[in-house]
Amino acid sequence: MSDFRLVKAQRLVAQAGLAGLVVGPGTELFYLTGLRINSHERLSAPVVPAEGEVSLVVPATDAASISTTLPVVSWRDGEDPYRLCTQITGEGVLGLGTALTADHVLRMQALAPRTVLAQDVLAELFMVKEPEEIAQLRAAAEAIDRIHARVPELLVAGCTEEDVAAQLRELITAEHASVDFVIVGSGPNGANPHHDFSSRVLEPGDAVVVDIGGALASGYRSDCTRTYQVPGVGEEAFATAYAVLEEAFDAAIAAVRPGVAAAEIDTAARRVIEDAGYGENFFHRTGHGIGLDTHEAPYIIAGNDQVIEENMAFSVEPGIYVPGKWGMRIEDIVVVTEDGCEQLNRRPRALG
Amino acid sequence: MSDFRLVKAQRLVAQAGLAGLVVGPGTELFYLTGLRINSHERLSAPVVPAEGEVSLVVPATDAASISTTLPVVSWRDGEDPYRLCTQITGEGVLGLGTALTADHVLRMQALAPRTVLAQDVLAELFMVKEPEEIAQLRAAAEAIDRIHARVPELLVAGCTEEDVAAQLRELITAEHASVDFVIVGSGPNGANPHHDFSSRVLEPGDAVVVDIGGALASGYRSDCTRTYQVPGVGEEAFATAYAVLEEAFDAAIAAVRPGVAAAEIDTAARRVIEDAGYGENFFHRTGHGIGLDTHEAPYIIAGNDQVIEENMAFSVEPGIYVPGKWGMRIEDIVVVTEDGCEQLNRRPRALG
Repeated sequence: MSDFRLVKAQRLVAQAGLAGLVVGPGTELFYLTGLRINSHERLSAPVVPAEGEVSLVVPATDAASISTTLPVVSWRDGEDPYRLCTQITGEGVLGLGTALTADHVLRMQALAPRTVLAQDVLAELFMVKEPEEIAQLRAAAEAIDRIHARVPELLVAGCTEEDVAAQLRELITAEHASVDFVIVGSGPNGANPHHDFSSRVLEPGDAVVVDIGGALASGYRSDCTRTYQVPGVGEEAFATAYAVLEEAFDAAIAAVRPGVAAAEIDTAARRVIEDAGYGENFFHRTGHGIGLDTHEAPYIIAGNDQVIEENMAFSVEPGIYVPGKWGMRIEDIVVVTEDGCEQLNRRPRALG
Repeated sequence: MSDFRLVKAQRLVAQAGLAGLVVGPGTELFYLTGLRINSHERLSAPVVPAEGEVSLVVPATDAASISTTLPVVSWRDGEDPYRLCTQITGEGVLGLGTALTADHVLRMQALAPRTVLAQDVLAELFMVKEPEEIAQLRAAAEAIDRIHARVPELLVAGCTEEDVAAQLRELITAEHASVDFVIVGSGPNGANPHHDFSSRVLEPGDAVVVDIGGALASGYRSDCTRTYQVPGVGEEAFATAYAVLEEAFDAAIAAVRPGVAAAEIDTAARRVIEDAGYGENFFHRTGHGIGLDTHEAPYIIAGNDQVIEENMAFSVEPGIYVPGKWGMRIEDIVVVTEDGCEQLNRRPRALG
């Protein structure tokens, strides 16, 4: 599989008119090689030239610990690994991996001044998912859906957000290899989209934003939000806004298809919310790509003219937040199909 | 303290002729602000202009969670945080923090094409330690020295490297807030400088490289290597080489003083080892800076013309490695004084 991906990478590098691709550490490196290497200040990088052999540039100190079928080009302290990269790619524009840090980027640019962010020009490589990746994302979505099915029984007046979060961590752990994050935002805490959880006690009628995610053993991620109400009487203004949110969510989903720009999907959700007078209360993007990282390209955000393609996977997650009062968000992961999208999460989206 | 550092940063930014400094996440951000923020694909960055107010650029989604006395400039998804940075700095050369990733670097460069790596031009800020930082490094060195004092009793023939490493982890944990790394390289495993530990059983007379480090609660790091011999008869060739290593170590220490280039310290150690015929067996740099990171600038490495200044702190750690047979390394942390250096580690350097 790694070899297949490297062949594909080389084809796309050539098509994009790049001399080569220097991959950074983290998930991009893992995706292309199956390896987990991060040698920090010492450059370790798969280098994909438009023509010729893909090689793995690694520090001599680490070469013995790396098990790979790729040709290894090792460099000793005091030698220049960036020159090795340009010797592999030849002259021209280099695509750089997202996770390369400034020390590496600026030293690479000293030898190859024309660089671009690889993910921007190699969308088919870094954003379009393969069938087995989609299967993994679907399995992750099913896992997190099973946990959302349990949430209503956890949201009991008198419990704290921490109590609920602790139980959610256990449930996520049982269904995933690791927990990524747990957000339990009740009442006014729901108005902070990056609130995690607190000692606040749940009260009858509270709105509660529950946003949870984890990673399967394969590395693929789940990420799903539903908004619930603790049994009791809620605010009428909340119910009114929730109907707007559902409409915005549906509008974004309806906008997803190959050929639209990412920004158009954002606009579809935002226009509904703005038209209903909540524009100032939806102050984050509509979504983010997901795969081996929870947040990755494509970002569904104003100004992003990235063209959406079949088999891209991302979240659709509009929200409405009224500081000091309450918040609400609905989030599903979608995969782009030939003429629309598949929603991987299947839990009801009505107020739970 | 943070304010003092920001004032110093601004003075140095102006002296270096930069328009400003955009700090990356991680330890550089923590050092300057006392904050631990990493907003990944969303830029969070303290921005230090040569003139005017230092500000903290952060995503609106995170602003509510950040406690700081700095002026906060928040940006919403869809707005351009890089433009906010250049509005703060004005036009000119920007210094970029080491940990900024390529997505941020390349987008910053689209607006401010002249960039330099901040650590390269702001050595006084990022490499020269304050008295309280040196006190912390001294405390860390004393902690790891107390652990090395216990190593001989752990190196018993019949134990595995893993057994020894497990005991070392416990000892490091008792003296530090966290364990950074544990290397127990016995016999031929000692010849791989980045070996950690294995199930290999220690044999009488084995050479064992023990390289250990941790972080104090303050974040400052320890890192110290000694080479030991399991009781028994060792190789004569090993003892001969060890005498060379001690000489190389002493030569490097003698070369440390303000005004020399980092590369000269590397050369001092390397020349002794090369002259004794082991040049090919010392294939890593002589040292690395240390502070809030275990590895940071200045790197004591061939080609690095960074001028060494008083109160820089770094490791001196020559080694000799014979693949398939054995390895050896001596490592102390030193702080540069007015006319030489203080060795923070005090354990005997003779074969233990």
